[in-house]
Amino acid sequence: MAALVAAEGSFGPASRSCKVPQETLLKLLEGLTRPALQPPLQPQLASLVGGPEETAQEGGVGTRPGPSSALPSLSIGMDSCVIPLRHGGLSLVQTTDFFYPLVEDPYMMGRIACANVLSDLYAMGITECDNMLMLLSVSQSMSEKEREKVTPLMIKGFRDAAEEGGTAVTGGQTVVNPWIIIGGVATVVCQQNEFIMPDSAVVGDVLVLTKPLGTQVAANAHQWLDNPEKWNKIKMVVSREEVELAYQEAMFNMATLNRTAAGLMHTFNAHAATDITGFGILGHSQNLAKQQKNEVSFVIHNLPIIAKMAAISKASGRFGLLQGTSAETSGGLLICLPREQAARFCSEIKSSKYGEGHQAWIVGIVEKGNRTARIIDKPRVIEVLPRGATAATTAAALAPDNSNAAAEPSL
Amino acid sequence: MAALVAAEGSFGPASRSCKVPQETLLKLLEGLTRPALQPPLQPQLASLVGGPEETAQEGGVGTRPGPSSALPSLSIGMDSCVIPLRHGGLSLVQTTDFFYPLVEDPYMMGRIACANVLSDLYAMGITECDNMLMLLSVSQSMSEKEREKVTPLMIKGFRDAAEEGGTAVTGGQTVVNPWIIIGGVATVVCQQNEFIMPDSAVVGDVLVLTKPLGTQVAANAHQWLDNPEKWNKIKMVVSREEVELAYQEAMFNMATLNRTAAGLMHTFNAHAATDITGFGILGHSQNLAKQQKNEVSFVIHNLPIIAKMAAISKASGRFGLLQGTSAETSGGLLICLPREQAARFCSEIKSSKYGEGHQAWIVGIVEKGNRTARIIDKPRVIEVLPRGATAATTAAALAPDNSNAAAEPSL
Repeated sequence: MAALVAAEGSFGPASRSCKVPQETLLKLLEGLTRPALQPPLQPQLASLVGGPEETAQEGGVGTRPGPSSALPSLSIGMDSCVIPLRHGGLSLVQTTDFFYPLVEDPYMMGRIACANVLSDLYAMGITECDNMLMLLSVSQSMSEKEREKVTPLMIKGFRDAAEEGGTAVTGGQTVVNPWIIIGGVATVVCQQNEFIMPDSAVVGDVLVLTKPLGTQVAANAHQWLDNPEKWNKIKMVVSREEVELAYQEAMFNMATLNRTAAGLMHTFNAHAATDITGFGILGHSQNLAKQQKNEVSFVIHNLPIIAKMAAISKASGRFGLLQGTSAETSGGLLICLPREQAARFCSEIKSSKYGEGHQAWIVGIVEKGNRTARIIDKPRVIEVLPRGATAATTAAALAPDNSNAAAEPSL
Repeated sequence: MAALVAAEGSFGPASRSCKVPQETLLKLLEGLTRPALQPPLQPQLASLVGGPEETAQEGGVGTRPGPSSALPSLSIGMDSCVIPLRHGGLSLVQTTDFFYPLVEDPYMMGRIACANVLSDLYAMGITECDNMLMLLSVSQSMSEKEREKVTPLMIKGFRDAAEEGGTAVTGGQTVVNPWIIIGGVATVVCQQNEFIMPDSAVVGDVLVLTKPLGTQVAANAHQWLDNPEKWNKIKMVVSREEVELAYQEAMFNMATLNRTAAGLMHTFNAHAATDITGFGILGHSQNLAKQQKNEVSFVIHNLPIIAKMAAISKASGRFGLLQGTSAETSGGLLICLPREQAARFCSEIKSSKYGEGHQAWIVGIVEKGNRTARIIDKPRVIEVLPRGATAATTAAALAPDNSNAAAEPSL
């Protein structure tokens, strides 16, 4: 299969380093964050709309009260923007995302890119998508032959994931660029009862996470298999086979839609949610906490992590996986659920009626606080075994200090 | 003012060479054009939806009949996609575009990028936009200081143009890339009477163009002022001052919204329209012709071109401006109007009540035919004088073989 890394130089640096850091982004977005030029916030909307700090998180730029004060409005900073429309109580919910390849398989990269875009809608409990546009750049460093192999596969992966999400790709834009870029724009017009504003967590809620962490650690470690200098730093804590398995597991998870989780948010009365991407579980938890109407804070006790990735993060001295700052791509939803519903949510999502491979873990609690989020001092690491793990690697992963992914974690 | 070309390498190649050629794009989009996997077209929609050839033109990918057969549906290939919604006869109209800088002034580049995105909505007679997302990459070749100067200016230009279009930028995505990229996504939800499907031209209609051609020729010629080898090829036909003036004129035109023209499409009962961008006036005319319900063809007689750009196109042996294949950025609308309305349209749009600088020319006719478009053998070139032209340059431009822009062209 044609690999995305076939052409030297066509593979951008690891995605995490290409996300513009929050502080830099704030400076760059200066032109959009001068409060004097913003329309004044309607008071009832102010609590839903982040200030400059939050709006910059995903490149969100500015606030925008809608025409109807009865409808909620939300600028990015959270995952999607919500624009009240002129028509019959409807809202436009929209999100965009694009990035550089981080896996070698073009088809899977297409799926992941699409899953990542849709995830911002799913984080609002939206299960439908009316339209998808694809954003693509083909690499000028690739030969025409390589492009002809790679690009249709990426597009097919993207389209297949869109189809799985019940939508279709109707357009987009394609350019030539030094690096490959893939992304999209997901749009839906919906009634108010179709989405869950991410602002209603209450004290006593429980935090649930629907995919294991460590996706970008796995993607990087997999690249390091061919880089002796980097590999030397981590080979004491992980075998090549474990890296391969973790990489496959990460790829599978990144390509999985959060659509089932979005549907279950309604079933189990979710109060708020976000998806875990570039700012890690801590960064996105902090973002979500800031959006809350109630005086709450989030405390994370458990970190479900693809097996061995915590060790790699420690050994390499990068990532900050245990600190919650390691970037994820197409990560899971972090959902605030009523305590009595959380275990039922985790059990239900594993049901075979939703297809293979859905998981969920209780990772933290909502307590009284000033809208912040933190990870406890020594969080419990839940080593999530790759599906492809053999008996031998399973035994290794089940070393005394690790818990099995199958066990229900306690707080 | 910080210039976009300040950092060596941050300026992509001239935009025209970065648009993926139609043929290549078709190959690349293979994954999306396998008819077997497409949902079958509803018969009444088939005539509105382009085949693979058209849908690939703007990166459009596949066809998609809507849920309600009473509503029109349109995939890209034309300028925007139109998705019938589940709600009360409403349609989602959406478009995306992004490209590389082609002018040195970051603020103007931002305005142009936004005008270019909105133009796809305006081509459908839509004057409102519910939401705008911005797509941005900052160049890794620039120093942090350069980025901090350039990026806020680009964003400000983009936002100011969005504001002029009655919308606001609520989000987007920002990454680091070798080249600067700027673009956006424009979305509107509207009733059927708010947009004009680009498919109803009738024999006897007249074609009107609302901006002069030659924008990219002017942008390139301006770069050549500092490139002796390239400049030598054109210095016999144009002075440095004329290039400067043409460049300013091009920049002004590219930054002008087609919103007024979109509004007047309703007033004067337009039958179809498109905007002129990457495939030149001929390419977009051909596209528009293919979309027509009636058996018509378009014949272009007049080419309004920024003064001296036709000569540069000839002398340089590139562009194909007189053949209609020269790419434009944020070009004018090409509108099919009833014959008796066309002159009134051209006169009305110049009215000072719409602000400075709107123009329009009758450029061709709609005749019976098989949905093709062509430019006549020796089209009349209308040399459009830059607004900044002095008496001296005006005299030069008014050489015997050229007609004055102020004169109403005949067919």
